[in-house]
Order: sequence, then structure tokens, then C-alpha cells
Amino acid sequence: MNVLAVGCHPDDLEIGCGGTLAKLASQGHEITMVHVANGNKGHKIIPPAELAEIREQEAKKAGSLIGAEVISLNRPDLMVKSDQDELISLLAGVIRRVRPDFIITHPPEDYMKDHMEVSRAVFDASFAATVPHYEADGGHPAAAKVAPIYYMDTLAGVGFLPTEYVDISDFIEVKIQMNDSHQSQIKWLYEHDGIDFLDFVRTVSKFRGLQCGKAYAEGFKQCQAWPRLTTERLLP
Amino acid sequence: MNVLAVGCHPDDLEIGCGGTLAKLASQGHEITMVHVANGNKGHKIIPPAELAEIREQEAKKAGSLIGAEVISLNRPDLMVKSDQDELISLLAGVIRRVRPDFIITHPPEDYMKDHMEVSRAVFDASFAATVPHYEADGGHPAAAKVAPIYYMDTLAGVGFLPTEYVDISDFIEVKIQMNDSHQSQIKWLYEHDGIDFLDFVRTVSKFRGLQCGKAYAEGFKQCQAWPRLTTERLLP
Amino acid sequence: MNVLAVGCHPDDLEIGCGGTLAKLASQGHEITMVHVANGNKGHKIIPPAELAEIREQEAKKAGSLIGAEVISLNRPDLMVKSDQDELISLLAGVIRRVRPDFIITHPPEDYMKDHMEVSRAVFDASFAATVPHYEADGGHPAAAKVAPIYYMDTLAGVGFLPTEYVDISDFIEVKIQMNDSHQSQIKWLYEHDGIDFLDFVRTVSKFRGLQCGKAYAEGFKQCQAWPRLTTERLLP
Amino acid sequence: MNVLAVGCHPDDLEIGCGGTLAKLASQGHEITMVHVANGNKGHKIIPPAELAEIREQEAKKAGSLIGAEVISLNRPDLMVKSDQDELISLLAGVIRRVRPDFIITHPPEDYMKDHMEVSRAVFDASFAATVPHYEADGGHPAAAKVAPIYYMDTLAGVGFLPTEYVDISDFIEVKIQMNDSHQSQIKWLYEHDGIDFLDFVRTVSKFRGLQCGKAYAEGFKQCQAWPRLTTERLLP
Amino acid sequence: MNVLAVGCHPDDLEIGCGGTLAKLASQGHEITMVHVANGNKGHKIIPPAELAEIREQEAKKAGSLIGAEVISLNRPDLMVKSDQDELISLLAGVIRRVRPDFIITHPPEDYMKDHMEVSRAVFDASFAATVPHYEADGGHPAAAKVAPIYYMDTLAGVGFLPTEYVDISDFIEVKIQMNDSHQSQIKWLYEHDGIDFLDFVRTVSKFRGLQCGKAYAEGFKQCQAWPRLTTERLLP
Amino acid sequence: MNVLAVGCHPDDLEIGCGGTLAKLASQGHEITMVHVANGNKGHKIIPPAELAEIREQEAKKAGSLIGAEVISLNRPDLMVKSDQDELISLLAGVIRRVRPDFIITHPPEDYMKDHMEVSRAVFDASFAATVPHYEADGGHPAAAKVAPIYYMDTLAGVGFLPTEYVDISDFIEVKIQMNDSHQSQIKWLYEHDGIDFLDFVRTVSKFRGLQCGKAYAEGFKQCQAWPRLTTERLLP
Repeated sequence: MNVLAVGCHPDDLEIGCGGTLAKLASQGHEITMVHVANGNKGHKIIPPAELAEIREQEAKKAGSLIGAEVISLNRPDLMVKSDQDELISLLAGVIRRVRPDFIITHPPEDYMKDHMEVSRAVFDASFAATVPHYEADGGHPAAAKVAPIYYMDTLAGVGFLPTEYVDISDFIEVKIQMNDSHQSQIKWLYEHDGIDFLDFVRTVSKFRGLQCGKAYAEGFKQCQAWPRLTTERLLP
Repeated sequence: MNVLAVGCHPDDLEIGCGGTLAKLASQGHEITMVHVANGNKGHKIIPPAELAEIREQEAKKAGSLIGAEVISLNRPDLMVKSDQDELISLLAGVIRRVRPDFIITHPPEDYMKDHMEVSRAVFDASFAATVPHYEADGGHPAAAKVAPIYYMDTLAGVGFLPTEYVDISDFIEVKIQMNDSHQSQIKWLYEHDGIDFLDFVRTVSKFRGLQCGKAYAEGFKQCQAWPRLTTERLLP
Repeated sequence: MNVLAVGCHPDDLEIGCGGTLAKLASQGHEITMVHVANGNKGHKIIPPAELAEIREQEAKKAGSLIGAEVISLNRPDLMVKSDQDELISLLAGVIRRVRPDFIITHPPEDYMKDHMEVSRAVFDASFAATVPHYEADGGHPAAAKVAPIYYMDTLAGVGFLPTEYVDISDFIEVKIQMNDSHQSQIKWLYEHDGIDFLDFVRTVSKFRGLQCGKAYAEGFKQCQAWPRLTTERLLP
Repeated sequence: MNVLAVGCHPDDLEIGCGGTLAKLASQGHEITMVHVANGNKGHKIIPPAELAEIREQEAKKAGSLIGAEVISLNRPDLMVKSDQDELISLLAGVIRRVRPDFIITHPPEDYMKDHMEVSRAVFDASFAATVPHYEADGGHPAAAKVAPIYYMDTLAGVGFLPTEYVDISDFIEVKIQMNDSHQSQIKWLYEHDGIDFLDFVRTVSKFRGLQCGKAYAEGFKQCQAWPRLTTERLLP
Repeated sequence: MNVLAVGCHPDDLEIGCGGTLAKLASQGHEITMVHVANGNKGHKIIPPAELAEIREQEAKKAGSLIGAEVISLNRPDLMVKSDQDELISLLAGVIRRVRPDFIITHPPEDYMKDHMEVSRAVFDASFAATVPHYEADGGHPAAAKVAPIYYMDTLAGVGFLPTEYVDISDFIEVKIQMNDSHQSQIKWLYEHDGIDFLDFVRTVSKFRGLQCGKAYAEGFKQCQAWPRLTTERLLP
Repeated sequence: MNVLAVGCHPDDLEIGCGGTLAKLASQGHEITMVHVANGNKGHKIIPPAELAEIREQEAKKAGSLIGAEVISLNRPDLMVKSDQDELISLLAGVIRRVRPDFIITHPPEDYMKDHMEVSRAVFDASFAATVPHYEADGGHPAAAKVAPIYYMDTLAGVGFLPTEYVDISDFIEVKIQMNDSHQSQIKWLYEHDGIDFLDFVRTVSKFRGLQCGKAYAEGFKQCQAWPRLTTERLLP
């Protein structure tokens, strides 16, 4: 399968579904990781332009650990807007090129606006991508079907009740490594919010594991919208 | 009564509440059917400008079957935005002219963004229409009251639990004819999504009928917002 | 229509739907008011047996104000159990005799167990009443249809979001009088919970009125279960 | 796998998950169909004892169409009580013997009490079955694990939003035949509720199919309780 | 503590949390009241520019009753858009200056769009305010923490189930006075919607009081989003 | 304050609110820990009667760590029934004696029936305890008020979204010790469900801590029923 994962900041996919992506990759599926924001404001001292470059490299490093293609849509932090035609066009372009069997992204409600905007943009763009007369970035032909969407966990699992779980017990260390690639963010989260990022990620995965009887897991909810419903499980 | 129905694409009202509108019309109420999008991208081959014209005619034909006035706000497909002042002004203008006793539109959550934007735009415009100093398209005086809103079914009923039902058993054939007017869409849905449109519409109406003990029915939920709540049933 | 209202204690219907019953009665409908518990423990000093008799008279007085038949199922307070065959049989017997067009009762979740048990018992008994081979108290033939149920407000409206409102502006004084008939309870609620009962009742009715734009109102939710759904409004 | 399906009346499984059971059987899984109530009151004329026998035969006939074992727990209609130790013991006994990989049963909320009691009894018994010192009917050793539960659709889909769908397009005719085995019930539902049973069943399956893009489907929700959550799809 | 309350129109805070703000002020906390819209369209005759000035004075008068600072962001009515960078910058600027220990604002769903936009804007701006490289109006340094948010009641309490209550029994008269300062609005609500504003406000406060056993109260829900969750009560 | 915590099995309180109880105790509050079931079936080899005694000792040891009184209502496992008058009488008797300022117990939905029955029994008994003419075990006079109830977490947090959090960072080691007192259960959970109990408990507490920004926390929801709502936080 082709799997498209669209996160907001360069490390959000690693936090929310890194283990699932690693597992999918290990099974031979093609993984494309998109981050919509460039993460340029995620630091106290490093200036935005420089930080965007650093984070781009961190994201590529994380993706390379599982052989995923990594794409940045390069929106400045706090400026992700699902109502902007350009963003939808960029996303639809990626979708037309990747032709995903399913998509993973943020849930519609999360801890900050940019995440929520990404969720809505993915919902919109993945529909638009199937409309022949819609012109999307890149000039690819329309996608054949409206892809199913799985919403990954919110940050710290607040307000999120998963209905599907993925066992990532064999992929927790890869997931941690993927997250460890984001050194600038590890430091920033520690400074901005006082949290130990890698321990945070491990604990949430362990908690989701407890819920479904595995050592480590990630939780998801499927987007309940026609015609995205499926009669088979697409998650690994 | 004056009844205003606002759908997204030229066939959405026929799918969601065609039977209810036919029933209301048969009872002597004035029906105004508005479609916000012109449906210009709803085909694989017919180019947008031509398609918009075709669909406009299809919509008028459908409306004529029940003696309804049909209005197009002529927004291009995938470009319906409730945040645009112009759209709200156009809608508020229609509301000020029609002075509806109640409004039917899409629910806030549905299978694609344009539908959801229409729902929000109707919510906003029907409030704005009552504010004297708000200037709306058409120059009509402010509406006297904030109209109650009934949300019609989602496409295929996904995620929708009606709290009110309308018996359309005597109007199912008119409803089917109204939908049959949309020949371009019938073909497009078949090509784009592989579905038999008229059978689809009939099946959903039959299912909603099963739920309330009628041959055919349509399901609705009332918008729960002050001062739109009522102490009588407005649906037929 | 025949309207059956089933409350838990002798004053619960007066609190939750007294205005609606008064309105229905004024329109010529037949009203039957059932209280399941005899209210025998609703006082600090008056002993249970004596109190049950007092409250029975209070209930009859309240019902007489609107010409309603008043029936007590005479269960001791804190002993209402929907799982008891006898209670279901008694209730089904009343339903078979009254043959209600619809029923009003407590919602499934309320502030104390007896209320919740009444709600469940009504749900069960009104189904059982339609089953020919089910033997119910009183020997009446099976009811012809499973009656729609409207759930009235919880006490103080906690946790309750009405979807239907009844304008009781012309019946608020009758409602207050009906409640005023329950002198023992007025005193007990004041002593047990420190509340001014009549003011309490008036305030909740006024609040529900504010919500739907009337001077006074009562809020309801329809029981969403097959085959109880309707295509017309039964509430007045 | 061993699949245990527990319905209330002799035809409930056929209505709610007949296609899914047929599909599972066709894939070589062992199917056990349990009906808790004997359906003895499901008729206007045929007396209970006779009807129970008729329906037992109908159930066996339906089960035989897919090679399923059929078990009756033989509770009289309207007398299913999840609080009865005997019922839990019987159910736990079946579970210990069958050792299901998963269970299908009614959802906790449905259109009548017996259905809801079955749902609760299955939830309880499937836990009790795993407790070594719990003594269940039949003398089998404790089950090794608390089985995952899938809740099937409510009657007519009222109040039910599936999160998982099973494509039964290739099994709709078998499903109809299974339901057609219940001739006494087909007549009773027609007389009691005025509905064409087989058309009813087909319509709901077709509607659920529309929702997930298949000709026919059945909808389910997984019971979200520890330790029943899974990391793989068990439904076919 | 520093408490920031952000309402939409010049009287919304007085309606929704006037008693709570008065109580906080009486306890020595610093209160800042922001209204985002200038209320310029809230009248039938007084022209917008003049009305905006009148309402600014009314708001200042109301705030002065409890010693609160009053700030207007001066957006025209019906033009509040959470997607506008300028609005977020203004709000973030206020937040950086005030450095609130917690924020009170409208809930995400309310009776009109401007209210809902304010809620979203506050959610977004209070996050943005903590990001060092985000440039906000006023040039203040980034806020140290993402402030907890309490959502106040909707208008008339429609669709709102509080999870926290504040006893305002000792502050109901101050609350009424604060509302009484909005003379233009009192008249407008009477003309536009036919409601007695002060009685309306008092009744809702009395109803919320009934729910929690106090003479008068206000209801709130905490915004459930990381990292805004708290382990202590911040409301008075 | 007097704090009453009512769990189902001898270790459930330690799992769900051990840290909160330890914190309350450290602040000088009187803690009473009740377990309704005696835990007699919680083992594969140790026979029920013997196990009940062992677990009673384990519970007492756990309670002694924080100076709490420990009471067993001694119901056999899998036999907890909220509909039994005797159980309600026992619980009401405890409540009348302890006169709790608030109660902590299981939420109404949890992973097994006995837990859910305890929740309902506590809800019922704490109301009954305030009714003067209700006769409860022990002969104590009626309680003066219906105590507020806080629902603690479900097992593994499945299906539970806390609205209030208690910081237990300083009490996590005491909590672990309290749980470590239940040696029989630690072994049984390992054998029955394959889980490392102490690690399980620590992980859930750490996860709840992540959600509210503390090292360790416990999550709760307040029972939303009149007259239990409060205008102050009772949790520590």
C-alpha cells in the first residue's frame, strides 16, 4: 500500500504514529511523511529561518530511519490555515502524486490550532484531489478514490478515545529514535513546557499499550465520513 | 409558510429533503430552493462553465416539479467559504427577501467541506439578516426574526441520528423525479463513486421510513441555538 | 388523545410536566397520572404509613385541578425496581387500560434511583403491554401499538438538554397550584434540601421558557427507539 | 476461529449479523449461535409452549444453512434478566465450552429490554467465564481470556452509528434465507408491527452497504472495555 | 491572580460571568475585561459609529463597578474572524501584557458566529502568546505559560452543561448593575428579541444556582486541552 | 473532611485513587476505605474462603499505610448487585456513620460488572442515607446531606476522560506501596491477564500526570446529579 501521513510540525507524526509508520514500512509499504508547518517558531533563541532549516533536516533524518519520503509544505508556524486555497492545492497535489490507500493525520480537535487546521485541510484536500476539474499543484491527474483517514492521538491523549489500536511493541525503539532526531524540539519542549520529550512519547505509547494488552501501542479513530468507510482494517 | 431550503450543490436538496419540500409545496407553502455552489466541477469531461449551465437548468427543472423558486448563488465547486463576507451578504439578502418561517440546510458535519461551509453560512447569514444595520445584498429591510433551522441528513446518513422524521410516502416518486432531473450528476456519481444515484436516494428514504414506521421518510435534527428553538413542529 | 404520564413520587409529574398536562387537558385530551412510589419516606416526622395516605390525597387534589385520573402503584419509597415482574405487570395493566397515544415519564438518567427505575419500567412495560401472550394486571387485551415516550426534565434540569419545548405560559399558575397541592413535600424539600419548592418549580419553567422564547415552558426529549418514533408532534 | 453469537430471540442474530456469520462460516470458522429467549410470546394466536418449539426449529433451520451450532437458553420472552445468576452461569458455561475468539451480541441500548439484558449478560458472563473459581453451568474449565465483543446493529438501526462494517454482498441471499426460516416471526412482525420482515432486513443491509460503498453490509461497534481491546480486526 | 475575561460584545461578559468577575475582584484579583466586537450594529436606530461609542462607555461603566480594566478590540459586529492574523495579534498582545493566570471566554458553540469566533481566537491567541518568535501587538515578551481557559455559559444556557459552578449569591446585585450599565443593549434586546434583559440575566443565574444549591450561580466548563489542564480550582 | 472511598475489590481504590487518598490523609482528613467485594475469586489456586481472608489482610495493610479505616462489605466476587436491599442498607449504614464530605467510587461504566454495580450502589445508598425513614444497617441517624461523588478512573483508563486531576507526585511511592500490599492480586493479575501490576499502576498515574503537567496524577469526573453539585473543589 501507499500510506500518506500528514502532520503539522516536523515531529508530530513521530509522536503520534511513528511506530505505526515504522511497522508499515517494515511490511514493505511505501510511506510518505508530510509536515505542513516548517516549525520555524519552535525555539526561544534560534531564529525562525535557521530553525526551519534545522528542523527540515531533523525531519528527513527521522524519515530516513524507516525509509520514508519526507515532504515539507513549508508553512510558517501559527500560520496554517485550511481555508487557504494554496494549502489545499499543495496537499491535493501530494495526494494525487502519492495516491494513498489511506491517510493518517491529526484529529479535528487537538491542543493547538495549527494541528486542527491540518486535520481539516487533509479532509478537504483528499476530497478535492478526486475531482477531475479541480486544479491542484503539480499537475497530476485526479486521484481515483477518496482515501480513508485515520486520526492519530492528540498530544498527551487529552480528550481522545481511540477505537483502533496498533501494536508497536517491536517498533518502540525505532519510534524513540525517530523522535530523538528532533533535537531542537526536544530542547524546546523542555524549555517551553518543561517536559522530557522522549519519556513523554514512551509513556503515552506504553499507556496505549496497557489499554490493548500490548507492551506499546498507538491509538487511532477512523474518520466517519462517506465514502471513506471501509470493510477491512488498513492499519497494520 | 415561507420555507427556505439551502443546499450546497444543485442536487443536494433533492437528495436530502426533496420529499419534505414536495410535501410542503403540496400543502400550499411557498418553497425557495437555493444552491450555493454551481456544481461546475461535478463531471469528468464536461468543462466547468458548460456544466454550471447544465446544472442550473437541471436544478430549475427539479424545482419546477414542485413549483419552487430556484436560486443559484453561483459559487464554484470547492470554493464555498462561510468566512467570506460576500457569501453571507448574498445569503442574508435571500433571507431578507424570502422571510422564511424556517430554513432547511446541511448539518454542520457532512461528507465534504462545501456542505459544511453552507451549513455554517446559513447559520451566520440567518442571524445577520435580522440585524438592522447589517447591509446585505438586495437592499431588503432586516428580517423580523432569527429563523429556526432544520438540518437534513448527511450523505448516506453517515454519522447522523435524526430526532425528527417527515413521512414522505406520498411524495417519494416526486422526490425521485426531482433527483432524476439531475442527469449530469446521476452520471457523474456513477463514474466518480460507482453508485446508482436514484436507487441510493430511494434506499436512504426507505431506511429512514423503516425507522419511523412509514414507507418512506426523511430525517432531520433541529439546530439547538437560541433564539431558534420552537414550541411547535414546523416540519410537515 | 389519551395521554399517560408516569412519575415516580406523587409530585414528580407536577414538577416536570404539570403545565404540559394542564395544557393537554384544556385541549380536551384524557390525562392519566400515575405515580409509582407512594412517597411514604418523604418526611422527617410523619411516619411512612400516614405520609403515604397524605400524599395520595395531595396527588388526587393536584390531578383534580386538571381533571386527570390519578393512580398510585403504591411502591414504598426507595423500593422501586424495574426488574420486578409485578411492577411491570401493574404498569402494563394501566397501559392496556388507558391505551395511551403517548407517554410522558422520567428520563433514564436523573438525580435518584427511583426516578431512573420508573423510566426503565415504563420503557419495558409499554412494550410488554403490546405482546398478546404477556399477562398483565387487570386482564385487559394487549395494546395495539408501542407508545411513543417523551422524557421530561430532570430535577433542576441537571444534565438535561431538551430537544422539544412546550409553551406553558397560559398554564404556569395551574402548574404552581398543582405543585402547591403537595404541602407535605413542600415542607420536606425545604427541610431536607433547603429549597423553596414553588419558587424552584417556577424558576425552572421560566428558564426553559427563556430558552425557547416563551414566558414559561417545559422541556422534553423523545425516546429514540423503534417503533416509537413519530412523524408528527404529539406534545401540545 | 471460534465465533460465538448471542442474540435475544431466535431471529435476532439473523437480522443483525446473519451475513457476517455466513461469511465467517464460509471462511471455515466455527460458528455457535445462541438465543437467550425462546421467543414463546412472539405471536398472537399460537400459544407460548407451542410457539417456543416452532421457533426452536426455525432457529435450527436457519443455523443449518451456514453449518452453525444453535443453542437455546430457553428463557421465556420478557423474562430475560442479566441480574439472574442462573442466566450468567448458563452463558458462561457456553463460553467456557465454545472458547470464542470473539463474541457478537446486541448493543447495550436497543429497542426492547430483553435485547439490552442479553447484551449486559454477555458482557458479564464472558468475564465471569475467565475466573477459575467461578462455577458455571457445564463444568468446563475457565476460559483463558476475556473475549472481545462486537455489538451488532439495533433494530432498524435507530440510535446506532457503526464504527466497523462487514461486506456481506456475497452473503445477502443466505442472510435472507436465514431470516426466511423464521416463518412464525415473519407473520408476527407483519401483524404486530405491520412490517415486511424480509424487505426490512434487506433494506437495512443495503443501507449499511451504501454507507461503506458495498452492495450490502452489516454495521458493528466494538465494546470498549479492558481487556477486550484488540490490535487486529476480528470481523471478516 | 490576573484574570482575563474575553467576551464578544460589550455586554457578554456581564451576562455570562459578571458575578464571577465581581467575586474575583472582591478577593483582590486583577480583572481585565476585553470585548472583541464594538457592538456597533446592536441597535435599530442609533447609527453604528455613534453606537460603538455609547457602548464603549457602557462597558467602561460596567467594568468600573468592580474595578476592572476594560479593553475594546473594536471589531465591527458580524465581522469577528478568528482566522484573521490581526485579531490574533491583538489578543495575544493583551495576553502578553496581562499575563493571566486563567482566561474566561465564550464556549466554542454558542448562539451566533461572533461569539464562537471569539472563543476560537482566544484559544489560538493564548497559545501563540507563549511562542517567543511569534510577534504580537504591543511588543511585550512571550507569556510564560499557556493559560487555562474556562468557557462561560451560552446565551440562555442552550446546549450547555456546566461542570463547574461559581456561587455568586453575594454578587448578584453587582452583576445586575453591571448589566444595567448597558442601557442601549437592554433596549435593543427588548426590541430585537422581545426580552427583558435584566430579568433574563437574573433568571439564568438563579437557575444555575438551583442546580448547585445556591441562591445564584454561574456555570462553566474547562477547556480540555493540553497543557491547560490544572490540578487546582482557579474559579473563585 | 471525612472522605469515603468505596471500591469494588480490595485493591481497586489503591489502583484508582490511592495517591489522592494518601494526599488527603497527609492533609489531616479522615479516610475510610470500603471494599464491597471480598475478592474471594481473584486467584487460580488459593480457594475462595482462604483468599478472602488473605485479601482482607492485604487491604488492611494498604489502608494502614495512610492511616485509613478499612471496611469490607464482604460480598463474594461476581455477586455484587446494586439492586439488593441488603447491600444498599450496608452502604447507607457506613455513610451514616462516616458522614462523608464527599465520596470517591468507580464510574458507572467500567471494565467489569461488579465495578459498575458498586458505582450504582454508592449513588443509591448515598441518597437513601439522607432519608430519615429509611432504615439502614447500624442504626445511625440519617445523614444531613447527599454527598458529592467523584468517579475515579476506569481500569487502564479505557473510555474515561477526566475533567479533574489530582497531583499525586509526592505520593506516588506511597501509592505503589499500597498496591504492593496486594501480593495475591499482583500475582493473579499477572497470571490471569499477563500484566505487571505495579508497573501498570505507575504508568497510568504517569500518563494522567502528563495530561495535566505533573509527574504523577489521578483523574476524576464529578457525578453530575442534583443536589450533589458543588461550588468548590473538594479533591485535594
